[in-house]
Amino acid sequence: MTVQQENYVALEPLFNPKSVAILGASENKNKLGYLQVKALLDGGFAGDIYPINPRSEKIEGLLCYPSLAEVKTTIDLAIFCLSADRVKQGLLECAENGIKAAVVFASGFSETGEEGLKEQQLISDLAKEHGIRIIGPNCVGLVNTTNGLVATFSPGLTNVPLNDKREVGFVTQSGAFGVLTYIAAAQKGLSFNYFVSVGNEMETEFSDVVEYMVHDPKTKVISGYLEGAKNPQKLRQLAKEALAKNKPMVIMKTGRSAAGSRAAASHTGSLAGSDQIYDAFFKQTGIVRANDFEDIIAFSKLFQTGKIPKGRNTVIVTSSGGRGINEADRCESYGLNIHPLSFTVKKAIEKNIPSFASASNPVDLTAAAAVTNPELFLEPLRVLVDDPDTDIIIFSEFPMHWTYDEPLIKEFIDICKNTDKFILITTFQLEGMSIPKSTPELVANGIPVITGDLNPIRALAKFVEYGERYEQQKQKNDVGIQPQQAKKDITPLVQYKTTLSEAEASEVLALYDIPTTQRMVATTAQEAVQHANSMGYPVALKIDSPDIPHKTEANAIKLNVKNDQEVMDAFDEIDRNARAYDANAVINGVSIQEMLPAGVEVIVGVTNDPGFGPVIMFGLGGIFVEVFRDISFRVAPLTRDDALEMIEEIKGYAILKGARGKAAVDIEAIVDVLLKVSALVTDHGDHIDELDINPLIVYEDGIKAADAMLVVRETEVQASVGVGG
Amino acid sequence: MTVQQENYVALEPLFNPKSVAILGASENKNKLGYLQVKALLDGGFAGDIYPINPRSEKIEGLLCYPSLAEVKTTIDLAIFCLSADRVKQGLLECAENGIKAAVVFASGFSETGEEGLKEQQLISDLAKEHGIRIIGPNCVGLVNTTNGLVATFSPGLTNVPLNDKREVGFVTQSGAFGVLTYIAAAQKGLSFNYFVSVGNEMETEFSDVVEYMVHDPKTKVISGYLEGAKNPQKLRQLAKEALAKNKPMVIMKTGRSAAGSRAAASHTGSLAGSDQIYDAFFKQTGIVRANDFEDIIAFSKLFQTGKIPKGRNTVIVTSSGGRGINEADRCESYGLNIHPLSFTVKKAIEKNIPSFASASNPVDLTAAAAVTNPELFLEPLRVLVDDPDTDIIIFSEFPMHWTYDEPLIKEFIDICKNTDKFILITTFQLEGMSIPKSTPELVANGIPVITGDLNPIRALAKFVEYGERYEQQKQKNDVGIQPQQAKKDITPLVQYKTTLSEAEASEVLALYDIPTTQRMVATTAQEAVQHANSMGYPVALKIDSPDIPHKTEANAIKLNVKNDQEVMDAFDEIDRNARAYDANAVINGVSIQEMLPAGVEVIVGVTNDPGFGPVIMFGLGGIFVEVFRDISFRVAPLTRDDALEMIEEIKGYAILKGARGKAAVDIEAIVDVLLKVSALVTDHGDHIDELDINPLIVYEDGIKAADAMLVVRETEVQASVGVGG
Repeated sequence: MTVQQENYVALEPLFNPKSVAILGASENKNKLGYLQVKALLDGGFAGDIYPINPRSEKIEGLLCYPSLAEVKTTIDLAIFCLSADRVKQGLLECAENGIKAAVVFASGFSETGEEGLKEQQLISDLAKEHGIRIIGPNCVGLVNTTNGLVATFSPGLTNVPLNDKREVGFVTQSGAFGVLTYIAAAQKGLSFNYFVSVGNEMETEFSDVVEYMVHDPKTKVISGYLEGAKNPQKLRQLAKEALAKNKPMVIMKTGRSAAGSRAAASHTGSLAGSDQIYDAFFKQTGIVRANDFEDIIAFSKLFQTGKIPKGRNTVIVTSSGGRGINEADRCESYGLNIHPLSFTVKKAIEKNIPSFASASNPVDLTAAAAVTNPELFLEPLRVLVDDPDTDIIIFSEFPMHWTYDEPLIKEFIDICKNTDKFILITTFQLEGMSIPKSTPELVANGIPVITGDLNPIRALAKFVEYGERYEQQKQKNDVGIQPQQAKKDITPLVQYKTTLSEAEASEVLALYDIPTTQRMVATTAQEAVQHANSMGYPVALKIDSPDIPHKTEANAIKLNVKNDQEVMDAFDEIDRNARAYDANAVINGVSIQEMLPAGVEVIVGVTNDPGFGPVIMFGLGGIFVEVFRDISFRVAPLTRDDALEMIEEIKGYAILKGARGKAAVDIEAIVDVLLKVSALVTDHGDHIDELDINPLIVYEDGIKAADAMLVVRETEVQASVGVGG
Repeated sequence: MTVQQENYVALEPLFNPKSVAILGASENKNKLGYLQVKALLDGGFAGDIYPINPRSEKIEGLLCYPSLAEVKTTIDLAIFCLSADRVKQGLLECAENGIKAAVVFASGFSETGEEGLKEQQLISDLAKEHGIRIIGPNCVGLVNTTNGLVATFSPGLTNVPLNDKREVGFVTQSGAFGVLTYIAAAQKGLSFNYFVSVGNEMETEFSDVVEYMVHDPKTKVISGYLEGAKNPQKLRQLAKEALAKNKPMVIMKTGRSAAGSRAAASHTGSLAGSDQIYDAFFKQTGIVRANDFEDIIAFSKLFQTGKIPKGRNTVIVTSSGGRGINEADRCESYGLNIHPLSFTVKKAIEKNIPSFASASNPVDLTAAAAVTNPELFLEPLRVLVDDPDTDIIIFSEFPMHWTYDEPLIKEFIDICKNTDKFILITTFQLEGMSIPKSTPELVANGIPVITGDLNPIRALAKFVEYGERYEQQKQKNDVGIQPQQAKKDITPLVQYKTTLSEAEASEVLALYDIPTTQRMVATTAQEAVQHANSMGYPVALKIDSPDIPHKTEANAIKLNVKNDQEVMDAFDEIDRNARAYDANAVINGVSIQEMLPAGVEVIVGVTNDPGFGPVIMFGLGGIFVEVFRDISFRVAPLTRDDALEMIEEIKGYAILKGARGKAAVDIEAIVDVLLKVSALVTDHGDHIDELDINPLIVYEDGIKAADAMLVVRETEVQASVGVGG
């Protein structure tokens, strides 16, 4: 059994218990302990229910037990309708019974401060000791709509009518928002199979639930509401597995505005907002980022058709010119392509529609189709299913009054079922007057009907992108993720350090075969002249000090130094200026470097995110990163595809490809550096807090790091202080 | 009476007729002519109704007239329930009666092709001849909900219940989309006073209706659906008047994707998509651009409070952490500021909320407020109304069950009414369970309650921006719009030309006092040397030919030429290369120019849009315009504020202000050039099709046009060919 399978089995009692005990069950109809019993009964839970309460004999006809100890069989799941102070005792009783899973609603733990956090830690330890998996505390609970397990007190989750298609799981870090999403989804025709509110994630966290769903054959789509992932690397692994299974993960990640700016020494550190990292992470892993709950609903409906669009070429068929244009705008704004129809296709459509209608894209059948001639809706469809240029057909209106008895609707469905074109009906949202009567039959036959309030076009664009990712991963090149080179020991270079000097940082890069400028540190002017001569003129001179990262500011850098005399003068001046700039700076000497010819300056950087670990940044240097923020991120380790995408994603890619008549630069060399940096920081994330290679100069052929700075992890510094001083 | 007032009076019979004739009235309940009679009766139209039909005596109890001629009084408005072929005859009868206004539904005119267009032109001429204002043809009609004038056959417009607040006018270029918007608005609690479907805009067009609403005291908000403005300059003038009156224009403009790319010789021409011009136009005029119909509804509801937010600092109060974060994300994404609360404010809020609640922004009162302690909602409000840092307070939830009897709601309303903070309630959209019971009282007291499906935060952000524009225009500097300098005659320079040579284009610029490089054209090498000496070395040599706009490509340009010998060599080489490049090119000679020192290169350009006339572009030169498209547009003529905003709007503004330790450039000098270019193209829009000043080099002090190209309007060329050759 693999680790994953083990986890899946461990969570089974949470989702599919054969028996449930309700701790704190009650006869009092206003109490949670009563609502919970009622919810299980109303939900039609088929297993055994054991209400536990020393003061009641029966609750809603169920035999009540004075304590768990009185129940003589081993129970699968315990639902805690107990206040925070009684949770520990309850857990001990569960352990005695042999219960392996629990849902704990009570608040009053880590969310209230230090005291609560301590108590939570205690309970968590206890749970681990006894092998009990816990959802909560401080949560709304868990619902499995396929077996009637309604482990929640929330009336919102029990009063909504569901339909029979239940294969979309939903896990949420917000109880209230989760309940709202659950109800909205149900009202709009999407019924979840699982609803899990993870609360404080004491023991079972967001990605554990995702893991269950990835391995659960009954779940076809995994959706969720996320404020912050506790274990992004696990989520990454799961996303990969899910994508391989064509099981989309559609996650709404909030807290974009909380990104803020962090105090950081490097460019990379100051530019990496948490939301940008999430964006990169989702892209990289194929997780679909839902902008809002509507995306979860609409995306799931699209996926449930069983078809994936083959491309982005979209035709809109409408009976309202205005609606058509509006939908076309929306398509293009989300990256779908409203392509011009070929002459042949246009002629073929025109043959059977009135002269005042339009066979351009959008195809406008005019009000005639809406009011008197609904059969017109079939005309463009008959033609478009054979058009090789068309991937998607959107009906932004559809005959309202056709019922399933109407022969034309049968023909419509028949055509749709026998084509690989993706066909979608979007409708305007008006209360009680906008949904076609035949919607149930259309949906049952794989033709989604989605109202405008769910933003179907946005979801469609995300679905198309998902499809592209799914196809891509089949041939995905994972080379970069395997270590390309043996792990090198950088400890001697970073020990007892906080920030490395340029020369020191360059040595670290060189260990991982990243090309750096030739450089030698001189401690006297004569030595400087010797180095310059051995290197060949012209050269650059820079102060080599970990305490002076901003050398220009300190006037401690001279470029294009051309002869011995200039070297001697420059050496003295740099030494003088550096000491004047910071009298206490540790100065290793003056670094003599080869002068690099001009090329395109890029920047490669790393920031070590508390959640994600090392995150790699790429951009064009100078103004482009500072003013235009034209940068891309990926979480380490990088695959070769990740590295390529990072490069292609920035606007400045056009410059790298050779804008304004210039030659293209060596993109492969950039990929190589990105992968080597990825290997370096994956091996040494515990040592490296920030890294900037800036500028990294790319040529038509080749690449060189002209400058570098590296900030050592504080933990490392503290540790080494502990050891060394 | 001003022209505007005249127009207002002329349209009065359309909106407020005392009597209405229905041409083509019918007893047949399936006919338009019947539906129209019924609609007026059901609408409660108080004026006289004259059904016209030779074959009926009475329709729905109204006396029927065999023809208009039989009606012995002069009627105000005629509604044509006639097919296209009978419109002309009907119009003649109207003229005889003295009718001054008509609504024509019939399709079969310009939308069907050339024949229809001809017929439409004929009818239009007839209408003008007899002074009859016409809405249509090919339209859904006109509704005035304040007097029961339902001049439409559309059942959608007659069956929706309206409320009593009717002060938002709506004009639409799409009939069907307009009807949907009208119904959706009514369902969501916004009742228009006027609905006008302008159809083919034969005689009365979109901006005429806007004009009526600008001058109509009963209209407080002007909203509309626009595909393309026929008369943008009129709309601009009206927008200015409306803004001065604090009467927002909220227009949904579609056809973004239709922008496409136009064939153009200049950068400016190829970069100016029609949607970008509209965006600029809306910004410039203070028209609020609605992304969708939801914005029209939500914006109007916000405006109807009678308050305008004083700034962008927003606090969110919620009982669901998830909803709060989500709403905060939305606020920041639309440019509102979720500011951190001051220590004092936080402490004051914390004093009266439970310890597990959060007094940060978003203020999270937790489920306790939603379920058991709704009175908590008042606590942050009491504090925040006195917080000078807070402009807007959003309740993303509100106690659902408070009715108007609840004393706390009275207190809530009382506090809201006595503060200048803008207070808004947004709710999640769930059928039948998300709108607070007290909504009518809240709304009546100026506290909007807007459901999430209307995207209230987006509308709020637009409203804040509107408020800023409104405040701005009070002190608006219109100097630029007045001619700053006398109109200069450029005709001699552009006559008989299609494209001007750089030297010729520079002469045009010089006429408008735009600083250009010193330049002299030489036809011999000796002359070139003389010019160079009189100018001082170094100089630049460039071919001067209208047929060679791309001089670098032709190898017909030499920079940094340092002495007499180099000038002679360069002259010969340029001459040779140019002739080799294009043997048929007209060559004026070689232009000798002063070499400009390095500065920041920007581009100022003009494209002459068929609808908007001259449109001015600004951006940084080179890569920034080509790769990053970091450009801004405004429609000429520019005000000083327009010019400043164009400069500040681009991302590269940071570079102009002095990024990376460099000095700021002379922004005033750029403003000056923009205003002079504006004057030039406003004076000579009939001569100039495209203009690029590229690069325009800006210094710390001063500015100079280093190169220019000008494409003469084709009409002008044709005209001059007619005259001259």
